This record gives sequence, C-alpha cells and structure tokens, in this order.
Amino acid sequence: MVFRKRTRAGLAKEMFLGRINPIERREELAIEDAVGRILAEDIVSEVDVPDHRRSAMDGYAVFADDTTGASEASPALLVEGVDCMRVHTGSPVPDQMDAVVMIEDTLSAGDGGVVEVRSAVHPNKNVSLIGEDVSRGETVFLAGHQIRGCDVAMLAMLGIADVRVFARPRVAIIPTGSELVQRGGKIGDGKIRETNGLMVSLYVEQWGGIPDHRGIVIDDPDLIEKEILASLDAGSDAIILCGGTSVGARDYVPGAIASVGELLVHGVALSPGKPAALGIIDCAHSVPVLSLPGYPVACLIASIEFGRPAILKLGRVPAKPDLILRARLGSKIASRIGYVTYTRVLVDGGVAHPVMTSGAGILSSVTRSDGFVIIKEELEGLDCGDEVDVVWIE
Amino acid sequence: MVFRKRTRAGLAKEMFLGRINPIERREELAIEDAVGRILAEDIVSEVDVPDHRRSAMDGYAVFADDTTGASEASPALLVEGVDCMRVHTGSPVPDQMDAVVMIEDTLSAGDGGVVEVRSAVHPNKNVSLIGEDVSRGETVFLAGHQIRGCDVAMLAMLGIADVRVFARPRVAIIPTGSELVQRGGKIGDGKIRETNGLMVSLYVEQWGGIPDHRGIVIDDPDLIEKEILASLDAGSDAIILCGGTSVGARDYVPGAIASVGELLVHGVALSPGKPAALGIIDCAHSVPVLSLPGYPVACLIASIEFGRPAILKLGRVPAKPDLILRARLGSKIASRIGYVTYTRVLVDGGVAHPVMTSGAGILSSVTRSDGFVIIKEELEGLDCGDEVDVVWIE
Repeated sequence: MVFRKRTRAGLAKEMFLGRINPIERREELAIEDAVGRILAEDIVSEVDVPDHRRSAMDGYAVFADDTTGASEASPALLVEGVDCMRVHTGSPVPDQMDAVVMIEDTLSAGDGGVVEVRSAVHPNKNVSLIGEDVSRGETVFLAGHQIRGCDVAMLAMLGIADVRVFARPRVAIIPTGSELVQRGGKIGDGKIRETNGLMVSLYVEQWGGIPDHRGIVIDDPDLIEKEILASLDAGSDAIILCGGTSVGARDYVPGAIASVGELLVHGVALSPGKPAALGIIDCAHSVPVLSLPGYPVACLIASIEFGRPAILKLGRVPAKPDLILRARLGSKIASRIGYVTYTRVLVDGGVAHPVMTSGAGILSSVTRSDGFVIIKEELEGLDCGDEVDVVWIE
Repeated sequence: MVFRKRTRAGLAKEMFLGRINPIERREELAIEDAVGRILAEDIVSEVDVPDHRRSAMDGYAVFADDTTGASEASPALLVEGVDCMRVHTGSPVPDQMDAVVMIEDTLSAGDGGVVEVRSAVHPNKNVSLIGEDVSRGETVFLAGHQIRGCDVAMLAMLGIADVRVFARPRVAIIPTGSELVQRGGKIGDGKIRETNGLMVSLYVEQWGGIPDHRGIVIDDPDLIEKEILASLDAGSDAIILCGGTSVGARDYVPGAIASVGELLVHGVALSPGKPAALGIIDCAHSVPVLSLPGYPVACLIASIEFGRPAILKLGRVPAKPDLILRARLGSKIASRIGYVTYTRVLVDGGVAHPVMTSGAGILSSVTRSDGFVIIKEELEGLDCGDEVDVVWIE
C-alpha cells in the first residue's frame, strides 16, 4: 500500500487555500488589546491632529512680518507678551502669531522685556499646522489592516478607545492514535505521550488562531468521524488532526474526512510530511481539515506548509516577510527532485550547517536547529557554499 | 541652546548596553506557557526517546536472519505470531524480533497463517532504536535557550511538565509633559492625549518585557526625579521616560537622570530621535534609564534603537534575524552623513516608496508605512533603484 501519487506541495496548497474563506465574525476590542488583530472597519478621523497650531521649536512666537530683514547686525526688537510670546516645542502658538523664531536666534532681556530677534522668519515657519498629521475626515486605516503598536498610538490620538476587529479563527486539534496517552498519564508498553497536538496548538496560537485541543481519539474510523463532526458542532473554523494519515491499516483519518466531507489531497511531495492530507467539509461554510502525519517533524513541517497559510487566510492576516537569515551552506544537501524539502540547519557565523534532511521521527533534529533551508521542488539538492535563506524556527 | 555634540548612534548603544546586566531572577512555568521564554537551566534527559524499539513502517516484525535470500521468486515463509508479528508505524517491535519488513514486500494468507516475505532485511532495518531521538543523560537544551513550540513538544516527550526560566524584565514607563492628559481626559486648550507611553508599553511587551505604565508627570524636575526613584523602589529593571529630553527650558529629564544616577549620553546622531538620552542608575544593580523624545516618531525610533536591545539584553533573549523584506528603492532618499536615518517606506511589488525621512512629529508617516529603510551613518542618502532591506514595522 503506497500513495498512488503525491500531489506537488505548491499545487496542494493552492487547492486547499482556494477553498478557504476568511471568517466574517467580528468583535469589539479596547485598542490596547488589539495589537496583531485585523481591523474590520475603516478608521476615519473625526478630529484634526494636531487640533491646534503647535510650535515645532523652543523659541518665540511672532508675527512673521515683524521679523522682515532681521539679522544679528540689525535685530528686530519685540516686546514680550505683546509682539512675541515665549513658546516651547509642542506648545500652542497664540492665535494672533503666525511663526516661531528659534530660541538660538533670540536674545531676551528678561521676563516682559524686549526680545532681540536676529533672524527673519516667513509665515508658518516652525509651526505645526492644524491637521498636519491627520485631518478630520481622512481615512487613517482601511479594514483588513493588521494593528501594530504605532497604530494603537494613532488610534489613541484620534480619541478612539475601541475598534471592531475580525474574530480569530477557532481551530480544533484532534490527536489520534491508540498508542497515545495524555500528558501525565502512564507510558511504557508501547504507549507514548501525546505531544503533537500540544505542539500544533502552540503554533496555531502563534499564527493568530484559538487552539481547541480536543481529547485523544483512538484509531477507530467511527470515533474519528464523530470527533470531526463534534468539532464542527463546536463552531470550529478549521480542524487539524494529528496521526493516522498514512496508508497503513490503522490510518483512518483521510477516509474519515472523505466520509464526512471532501478529501482534496492525500500524499504530498513534501519531505518530511509526505502523508499529509487536506480536505474541506462544506456545511454552513467551507471548513478546512488538515490531517498531519504522526511523526513529529513531519507533523511540524506539514503544519507550517499547510496549517499556517490556512490559519492566516481564515484570520485575514496580511502577508508579511518571513523571519529569514541569509547564510552560506556549510555542506552539500541532497533532496529528491519534485519534492519540497525542509532541511534543518544550525547557523554559526553566517554558515548554515545541515542537521538532517530525513528522519521525520527525530524531533531533536528540529530542536537542535535554528531554522530550515527549504529546497524547491525543481532542484536536486544544494551545493556547499550556496547562498541560502534560513527560515527561522519560532 | 543646542546639543554641544551628538553621540554616534552605534557608540551610544554600545555605551548603554555595556552597562546593562541580564537579570538573574528566575521563575517556574508550565511548559505550555513557556513559549518565547528563556531557559534558566540546562535540560538533561532522564529518559530515552523512544523508550522502546518502534517500527518505522507498516509491516511485519521478523528475525532478520529468517529473511536471508528472500525474494519475490523465493519468499521466506514465516508463521504469523511465531516467526513474525504484524506491526504498524510507530508500534513496538516485539523483544525477540530485530527487523521490520514493509507490508508491500509481504503477502499474508490471513490471521495466524503463513506470511510470505519477499524481501531480505538486515538487523534493525525499519526499526527506530531506543534513544534514537534523545538518549538518557543527554543535554537537550542549554540554559539561555529561547523556548519555541517544537521545544515544548520535546520537553513533553521527555516527561517534563515545568521549567525554570528567567523572569521577564519589569520596565517602568513614565510619560512626562504638562500638556498631557490621560486617555479619556479632556483635550483642547493646548492639552493633548498621552499616547507615547501607551505605544512604548505595547512594544516593551512585544520585546519580552513587562510594561508598568506609570502616571503622567508634569514638567517639574523634582517630580520627575521622585517618579524615577519610585520606579526603582517598585523593582523596575529598566526605566523609560517619554518627553522632556531635548534642550529646551522645560526639558528636565536628562537633568533628573544625572541627578539620581549617571547620564551617559544626551543627544544622538539618530534621525528622527536626536534628543534621546541614555543613563544608568547604580543602586543594588545597574538600572538602565532611557529618555525618549516627545515627538511620536522620534519616540518610536529611539525606542527601537535603544529600548529594544536593552530589553532583549536584560531578558537574555538570544539574537534572531529581523523581519526584513528585500526591495528596490522607488526614489532617492537624502540623509545627513554621520546620522543613522530611519526612512519610512511603503512596499508595493518589490519597490520601497519613501513616505518620509523627516517629520518626527507626524505619526501618520509611520502608520502609513510598512517598514523602515535604515540608512547607515557613513552614507549620504540612497539612490533610486538601490537594493535595500526594509525592516518591517511590527
């Protein structure tokens, strides 16, 4: 029993993402809790920022006309409190004044006395005008924008306390396998601890989803089906199963997906990660189902390859650059043509040393690594000294 | 009143970081809450992973010797349950067996019957050995390692439920300025909302610190000093002040730092961000104090330039790559030689379009941008078409 065919990783992703619809649910949040969230409304300013003319310098607010021709040799003499006013950076410019002379270009006899102005200024010089930053009626952010710390400060400046954002996708995580025991349970006798579901939950959270780690399901097709349906009933926006996805006698997950929905892909030209399966359950809306291999490295890599973009699309997270370090390969890496291959590497002094290309079951090959060098399917390995992008493991 | 001299940005950072000691406080956390945290202990495995020999394939566990010479034409005939045992990927290999034949290379007459083995296997073929991933006594992580999702899965595999990590640095944030009102307060008449402290708090959290946003302090040197001392008493590992750092009559922060500690730098060749000041207060331990400009863009950029590395060093966060997008400049940018200059850019189709190089007070120049092109101090601007790294704004 082998895979009749393996779908190209890029094609599999395209088929999967093409069936995923971003979620529509919205919620209201205080701006200080909204970092990383996606705006569900355009933000139009109801105010001018600044809402008054501000001095951009420490100095004296003046009538620009009064300074015409002023110089060190022939200063303009202005009476403080009448012709000019002392101002500080950021402080309001009095209504009747129209420019600010820098303190360095003045000489004051003292409070209320005469100020010598030694430099001419034109109107609006060193004055921040009303609405210079944001003007009333201006669209400051569009719906779909991902809110950053600086954006929260801007929202606060506009006097906005709460914003409507899209809800985070709820992702059910179902570990399958009769050999699994809950963490804290007794291992031995062939039993092992459930760790893939834990790992996937943490990454789902990192990618902006809300993980719902459901109990372990043994290798039983009916129970697996039942748990998928229960996850749908619980309102999951996506379902991720770990284990039981290969072509062995106990691999019931792809069959269960096909039975309750549509199995799009089973078997992907991804290394590690070949047994991954992708499906859609079309109930009220189209719910993506990802079946991850039980081997931990394959599980992680298939999560990154398919789970991450699916959750980002559901959550409407705009594209941003990957965390990448440029390095040179410290030795040759082999890869199978037609397969997208994730090599684990350790980076030292700008050189990426391959830790392992195979060994889907050896999680320490990942935990000892800094990142992945992802070899494209059209390549047959990479040479020592090749310049590569190392995708940092987060 | 101008800065007598401005310290080079790189030198200022070096002086500042050189006086910062990583924090020593530790705490114990459940592994599932430890993502992003820094291990304060080496992790040595007390178990073997796997702790039993596992089949790497679906098939039959056999005595390798029994398969010598087996082929399709002349299969070895083994009695199931005696000479061989059906195994699944990941399931234990019975003690008396030493290899696994893939299911594809066998033909079974049915339960308990004779199995035809059509391929020879050598000992340990398709068997994951005890300790293959991690062996008992092996150091799996060193203290100082930043915990990732995959590492949590590894810790769970090792049967570890809690880990000792370094505490997150506590960072006091003190907004100063007589013109400031708390969010929700009444503005107008030259009053503006406090937003810099809010913004800095959000970034401090993002960089791994625990922000302690303290109340607004008016422009009064005694009150500023008092609040710095109160922050020290509250156990702050770092203190960040916003505003009052220039050389105007109302800029009391650098003086207050000098009065209670040591002012290392005042005025930096950083644009925007020139008025920033850096200091250290040496009480029980050396507490860094960062005085940020009141203009929001200058405040943000000086935070990124000095606050971020200070918090990462305090928190012992290992270096990782920046979030960078490579692009070509869509137009020429001017910069002042000797100054590190942050240009805000919007990236579209691989082209970085400068939004603004100056305008330290215009926060919308940042909120409308995707990232910064950071121009080194030895350069005098960049040309249209130059390849640049855009540091993504998070």
